[in-house]
Amino acid sequence: MNAYSEKESRLKILIISPVVSQELLKDDKEYFQGLADSETNVVVMGLEKGPTSIETFHDAVYAGPDILRLVREKSDVVDAIMINCFADPGVDAAREMTDKVVLGPAETSMSVALHLGAKFSVISILPNTGPWVRWQARKLGIESRLASAIGIDIPVLGLEKDLEETAAQIVEAAKQAIKIDGAEVIVLGCTGMAALAERVRKQLCVPVIEPAATTFKMAELLVKLGLRHHRGGLYLTASYDKIRGY
Amino acid sequence: MNAYSEKESRLKILIISPVVSQELLKDDKEYFQGLADSETNVVVMGLEKGPTSIETFHDAVYAGPDILRLVREKSDVVDAIMINCFADPGVDAAREMTDKVVLGPAETSMSVALHLGAKFSVISILPNTGPWVRWQARKLGIESRLASAIGIDIPVLGLEKDLEETAAQIVEAAKQAIKIDGAEVIVLGCTGMAALAERVRKQLCVPVIEPAATTFKMAELLVKLGLRHHRGGLYLTASYDKIRGY
Amino acid sequence: MNAYSEKESRLKILIISPVVSQELLKDDKEYFQGLADSETNVVVMGLEKGPTSIETFHDAVYAGPDILRLVREKSDVVDAIMINCFADPGVDAAREMTDKVVLGPAETSMSVALHLGAKFSVISILPNTGPWVRWQARKLGIESRLASAIGIDIPVLGLEKDLEETAAQIVEAAKQAIKIDGAEVIVLGCTGMAALAERVRKQLCVPVIEPAATTFKMAELLVKLGLRHHRGGLYLTASYDKIRGY
Amino acid sequence: MNAYSEKESRLKILIISPVVSQELLKDDKEYFQGLADSETNVVVMGLEKGPTSIETFHDAVYAGPDILRLVREKSDVVDAIMINCFADPGVDAAREMTDKVVLGPAETSMSVALHLGAKFSVISILPNTGPWVRWQARKLGIESRLASAIGIDIPVLGLEKDLEETAAQIVEAAKQAIKIDGAEVIVLGCTGMAALAERVRKQLCVPVIEPAATTFKMAELLVKLGLRHHRGGLYLTASYDKIRGY
Amino acid sequence: MNAYSEKESRLKILIISPVVSQELLKDDKEYFQGLADSETNVVVMGLEKGPTSIETFHDAVYAGPDILRLVREKSDVVDAIMINCFADPGVDAAREMTDKVVLGPAETSMSVALHLGAKFSVISILPNTGPWVRWQARKLGIESRLASAIGIDIPVLGLEKDLEETAAQIVEAAKQAIKIDGAEVIVLGCTGMAALAERVRKQLCVPVIEPAATTFKMAELLVKLGLRHHRGGLYLTASYDKIRGY
Amino acid sequence: MNAYSEKESRLKILIISPVVSQELLKDDKEYFQGLADSETNVVVMGLEKGPTSIETFHDAVYAGPDILRLVREKSDVVDAIMINCFADPGVDAAREMTDKVVLGPAETSMSVALHLGAKFSVISILPNTGPWVRWQARKLGIESRLASAIGIDIPVLGLEKDLEETAAQIVEAAKQAIKIDGAEVIVLGCTGMAALAERVRKQLCVPVIEPAATTFKMAELLVKLGLRHHRGGLYLTASYDKIRGY
Repeated sequence: MNAYSEKESRLKILIISPVVSQELLKDDKEYFQGLADSETNVVVMGLEKGPTSIETFHDAVYAGPDILRLVREKSDVVDAIMINCFADPGVDAAREMTDKVVLGPAETSMSVALHLGAKFSVISILPNTGPWVRWQARKLGIESRLASAIGIDIPVLGLEKDLEETAAQIVEAAKQAIKIDGAEVIVLGCTGMAALAERVRKQLCVPVIEPAATTFKMAELLVKLGLRHHRGGLYLTASYDKIRGY
Repeated sequence: MNAYSEKESRLKILIISPVVSQELLKDDKEYFQGLADSETNVVVMGLEKGPTSIETFHDAVYAGPDILRLVREKSDVVDAIMINCFADPGVDAAREMTDKVVLGPAETSMSVALHLGAKFSVISILPNTGPWVRWQARKLGIESRLASAIGIDIPVLGLEKDLEETAAQIVEAAKQAIKIDGAEVIVLGCTGMAALAERVRKQLCVPVIEPAATTFKMAELLVKLGLRHHRGGLYLTASYDKIRGY
Repeated sequence: MNAYSEKESRLKILIISPVVSQELLKDDKEYFQGLADSETNVVVMGLEKGPTSIETFHDAVYAGPDILRLVREKSDVVDAIMINCFADPGVDAAREMTDKVVLGPAETSMSVALHLGAKFSVISILPNTGPWVRWQARKLGIESRLASAIGIDIPVLGLEKDLEETAAQIVEAAKQAIKIDGAEVIVLGCTGMAALAERVRKQLCVPVIEPAATTFKMAELLVKLGLRHHRGGLYLTASYDKIRGY
Repeated sequence: MNAYSEKESRLKILIISPVVSQELLKDDKEYFQGLADSETNVVVMGLEKGPTSIETFHDAVYAGPDILRLVREKSDVVDAIMINCFADPGVDAAREMTDKVVLGPAETSMSVALHLGAKFSVISILPNTGPWVRWQARKLGIESRLASAIGIDIPVLGLEKDLEETAAQIVEAAKQAIKIDGAEVIVLGCTGMAALAERVRKQLCVPVIEPAATTFKMAELLVKLGLRHHRGGLYLTASYDKIRGY
Repeated sequence: MNAYSEKESRLKILIISPVVSQELLKDDKEYFQGLADSETNVVVMGLEKGPTSIETFHDAVYAGPDILRLVREKSDVVDAIMINCFADPGVDAAREMTDKVVLGPAETSMSVALHLGAKFSVISILPNTGPWVRWQARKLGIESRLASAIGIDIPVLGLEKDLEETAAQIVEAAKQAIKIDGAEVIVLGCTGMAALAERVRKQLCVPVIEPAATTFKMAELLVKLGLRHHRGGLYLTASYDKIRGY
Repeated sequence: MNAYSEKESRLKILIISPVVSQELLKDDKEYFQGLADSETNVVVMGLEKGPTSIETFHDAVYAGPDILRLVREKSDVVDAIMINCFADPGVDAAREMTDKVVLGPAETSMSVALHLGAKFSVISILPNTGPWVRWQARKLGIESRLASAIGIDIPVLGLEKDLEETAAQIVEAAKQAIKIDGAEVIVLGCTGMAALAERVRKQLCVPVIEPAATTFKMAELLVKLGLRHHRGGLYLTASYDKIRGY
C-alpha cells in the first residue's frame, strides 16, 4: 500500500477565512466545493475575534491567535488547512502545529506562476502591495521572477461594490504590468478577488491566477501525493503550554 | 460557464517518455493511471528515434526532435503534455507549439518543494547532477532555495538492477544533504527513480518528492484551473515550415 | 532650528519585552539604563497575555496582539519603541501604527554587522535558527553577507541556568562558524543572551554583537538624527477600528 | 615546452552555421578569415537538416542533432568549434563530446561585455528576446549586469532586406536601452547582425559588441592559452552508442 | 568592568575630510560638534596633498595616501575615524591599519536606510552616480534594497553656489525616485550636501538621510558598544615598511 | 575601412607592474613577449613610488598615484594598458583617463573562467583571499559562479622561494576547492604565480587560468575588435587639474 492508495477515501480540507465575518463563509464554501474533486469535502470557518479584513501587517497580527485556535482545534480531523488570505497569515505558525498540509495563497500562487511564463506581476488592493509582495517573493526565494506588484487602491471590502469598475481597474494595472514591466502572468493578489477572476481573464491575453482556487487545488494535490512540510528545521513543534491569557 | 465547469468531462494527459524503449511504457501507464483522478485518461508514448536514456545534454539534444514530433501530432487531442525526464527536454520548445499545458519534472518538483521546507536537495544519478541541477534551479529563479544536488553515480538504466542497493545509496546521499547542507526536502532527480520512492521515503525523516507523480498531478491541477503558459513572450509560436530534413 | 536641536531634552525609549514575565523587567531596565546616554529615559514593559518565551512562529503570533496594545497605548509618549526579541515580533505592524522609531534586534544587529567584517554568523538557541535567520536575512536583503546561523539547542529559559556552560556552547558554535563558514562577526541571535555577551566576547577573536544593546543604541541614534520609517509604502497607516474581540 | 609553444603552428577553427543554408557559408568564411590571426585557418560548415533560421527554442531543438554530427565528425581535426547562433544551440552538448574549445556567441559576448561598462543591453530580433536573453544571463550567472534585452521584431531572414532600416531600428532600441535602462554597452543579439555592426556602431556613443566576431576571437584566445572547458563536472563524456535512429 | 563602563570618559572622533581644502574644516567641525553627544570630542583634518574634490575613481586614488597618513599618525589617539566622503575612500585600507572604529558615509547611510523603508534611492552629483552607487550597494550586499541612484549633474564644488536651486534639483530627482522607482527613503549621496539636508527634508514625504551626520553618530554608537571591525579576514594588518617614496 | 582593418599594424600594450621593483620587469617583458601575437609590441613599466608588493587594500592605495602617472604619461602612445596585479589596482580610475583598453587580471580571469566550467575557485596568497575575491566577484556580478577562494598563506615575495613547495600548496588548496567546493576551474589569484602555472596545471584535472597571460591576450582581443570601455556612465572623464601635491 503506497501513499496514493487511499485516494478514493474522502479528503477533508479546512479553509480558514481569517476575518470576522459570517457572511462570506457560505459563498466561500460554494466556491470551493464547486472546485473540489469528487472525493473532497470542504469546510469553511471564520474567526470569532480578529480583523474584519486584512490589509496591513497590523491586521494580520490580530488575525493570528484565532487562526491558530482553529488549527489547534481542527487539524486532527482534516487532511489539509488553507488560510484564505494573500498575506498568508499564520501559515508558518500553523505548520509548527500540525503534520497536515498547510498552505497560503501568496506562496502557492507565486509557485504556480513559475510554470506559466518568464515573469509574473501581482495586482492587489492597496499601495503597500508593491513592497509587501516583493518581500513575500524574496522570502519565497523567487524575487527574480516577479515583474512587479501593483496596488489599485480599493480596500478589500470595496472590491465587490462595483464589480465592473473593480475589474476594469485590475485590468488596467495588469496591462501596465504586461506592457511596461514585462509580466507574462498575472496573479490576483487578494483572495477577495475570486469573483472578479473570470471578468479579468476575459480582458487579458496572459494567464490569470486566482489565488484561492489555486491554493485549494494545490492542497488536494499535496494530500493526494502524501506530501507535507518538514517539521524539525524551519518548522519545529510548537507548544501551546507556554501561552498565557488565550 | 467558467473555466472549471468542464471538470467532469474526461481529461487527457499525454506522457512522453523521451527515450527509445517500448518496455517502460506499459509500467509507466499503470503507474500514472494509478495516480490519476477518476476523470483523467493517461496516454504514454515513447520515441522512435533518440537516446535509450538521458544522462547528458548530448542525450537530450537527440531526444528533442522526436519529442516535438509527438507534441505536433498529439497536442490537438490532449489536455496536457508531460515530458517525463528530469532534464525537462523539449519543454520550452513544446510550449511554443501548443496552448495545452506542458510540464517537465524538474521545474515542477522544484516548485512544489518550495512549500515543504526551507531548502531542498536533489539526489540524482551522475556526477553532473550538482552543476546541472543548480543550473536548472537558477533558470527557474529559485537557486537560493536549493541546498545541494548530489549524484550517486549509478546510470539511469542501472537504477533498478538492485532496488535495495540503489535506495540505500539515495538514502545515504539524502542524509548527507540533510545533515551537512541543511536540506529539509529531498527531490528525487530522475523520473527513473519512481519505483524507489517509497523505499527511500520510509528511511528518511523529511518529505520526498517523486518528480514523475508530482508533475502528473500538477498537469491535472493546471488543466482543472484552466491555466496555461503564456505565448507571445518567452514562448512565441513556432513554425514547423522552416524545418528541413525532418 | 534643525532636527538635532532638541537633543538635550529627555529622550524616552519604550522597550517591550514581548513575553509574559514580570521577573525580567527590572533586570532589563537596569541593563538598558546602564547603556543609555545621559538624556535617555528607559521604560521596560512586558505583556499581560502571550507566550512565556518566543522560540517559534507560533509563539510570535501569540505575542503579537499585546505588543500592539502597548504600541497603541504608549507610542504618543515615547520617542522610540524597541521590541526586545530576535524574532522581531510585531515590528512591521508597529511601524504601521506610529511615526515614532520602531526597531527590532534581528534587523538592527544584522545591519550593524555589515560594518564589522565580510560575513557574519548568528548563534542562537534552537534548530530552527539556521533557516529562520536565513529567512530574516533574505527579508532584509543581506543574505549574501550571512555566513551561517547555528542553533545550540538550549531553550530561551534555559540559557541562564548555567552561564558558563551556555557560554561554552555559544563559543563552540561560533568557532565553527568562524573556521568553517568564514564568519568574521558573531551576532548573538537571542536577546536572552545579553548576560552572556561579555563571557563570549572574551573567548573569541572576532567582534560579538549583543543584539539588545545594539538595538537600544540604534534607537537613540535614529531619534537624535530625526530619522523614522516611511509610512505610505510598505507601512500604511493601520486602523484599530476594524479589529473585533480585542 | 609550455602550452603556448605551439602558437605559430596553424590553428584551425570550425564555425558551425546551425542552419540549413549554403548561401551564407561563403560570406561567413570571408568575414571570419578577415578577422583571423595570421596563423588561424577558418572552416565554415552548415547543416544538412535543421531549421532555416533559429528564432525559437523549437528551431534550436531541430538544429541540435546535425550540429552534434558535425562536432562528432570534425572535432578531431580542429582546435576550436564555434556554434554561430546567439541561442548557443548545442554548446553544452558539444562540450560533452570533445576536449577542444567550444564556444557560443551569447555566452561569449556577454562575458566580454563585463569589461566595457557597468551594464549592457542586448538588442535582438523578436519579442522573445527580453525573457530569453534574461534567462541566458541568469544561466551565465551575470543577470545583475544585464540592463535590458529588447527585440526589434524583424525575423532573422529579414535583417538584411534593408540594411539602413534594420540598423535604424537597432539604433533606436539601443538608444532606449541607454537612456531608460542605463545600458553602457550594446550587444547585438543575433549573429545575423554582423553586417550591421559598423552601421550601428557609428550611430551610438557606447561600445557595440558584434557577437560572431567576438566569439571567434575568444576561440583563438582560448586555444592560444591552452584553456578548455572541464569535463567531469557539468560536462561529462557523452556516448553516441546510446543514440538510436540517427 | 564591561565594554560600556568607560562611556563617560571623553570619546574622540577624527573626521578626515579627504580633500585639499582648509576652508571647509571649520564649518565641518562646527557641524559635527553640534551633532555630538556631550562626551564626544571632534577633530576634523584635511589633506595636504590630494584632490580638491572627489567625483571620480581617479580623484579617490589621489586622496588615498594622505588619508592613510592621517590614519597612521592619529589612530592611536582617537576612538574612531570617519572618512567624510560618499566614495568611502581609504575605508578598507584604514581598517587594515587600526583597531579603532573606521566608517565611511556610503556604507553607513545605506545600512541605516535598511531600517526606514522597503527601498531607498541615492541622489548624488554626477552621471556616474547610478552605476557607482549600485556597485557600492552590491559590494555591501544590499543591492536588492536599492531602488535607484540618480545624479543631478552639479559638481561637488557647485553644490552650495545656489542652495535653493541645488535643493530644488535634489528634490526633483528624489520625487522621481519615489514615484517611478519606488523609493521610500532618500539618501543624499554626497557629504557636501549636508547644508542642504533640511531644505530637502521639508519638501519630501519620506525620510532623508544626511550621510555625514549619520556616519558620525554611528561612529559614536560603535565606540560606545565596544564594537570594531575584525582584523584577520578581509582586513589583515597592513605594513607601512613595504611602502617606498611616501 | 572597419574596426579590424588595422590589425596588421603594430599593436602596443603597456603592462604596468604596480610595484617598486626593477628586477621583475625584464622577466615580465620576456614572458609577455613570448605570449604576444606577431604584431604585438610589449612595454613593461614599474612604479617609482609605491609598495614592494600588493597584499592588502593599504598596499593598493599606495600603488594608485604612480599607476595613474604612468597611465597619464603613456596612454597616448599605446593601444592597451594592463595593470598586472590581481587586486586590479587603479583599473577603474585608469578607465576614466583614457579611451584605450584598460584591463586588470581579476576581472579578466574571472570572466574567462565563465566559459570553462560551472564554478571556479581562486587560489591566492593570504588569508584575506576568501573575502576579498568574493567581494571582487560580487562587484563583477558573478558571485554565483565563484565556488570558493582560498589563501595558501605565502606572501607574494615568498612565492618563488621554493617553486615546488609553493606549487604543492597551490595544488593542495585547489584539490580541496575541487572536491569540497565543487570547483571545475582554478584561477591563480596572484600574477606572481605565473611561473608556477605549468607546474600546477600538470597536477590538476581541471583548467587552470594564469591571470597575467589571460589578461594580456584579452587586451589583444579587445584592441583587435575595436572594443573599449564606455566613458560617460560609470567611468566619467577625470581631471588631473584638481589634484594638488602630485
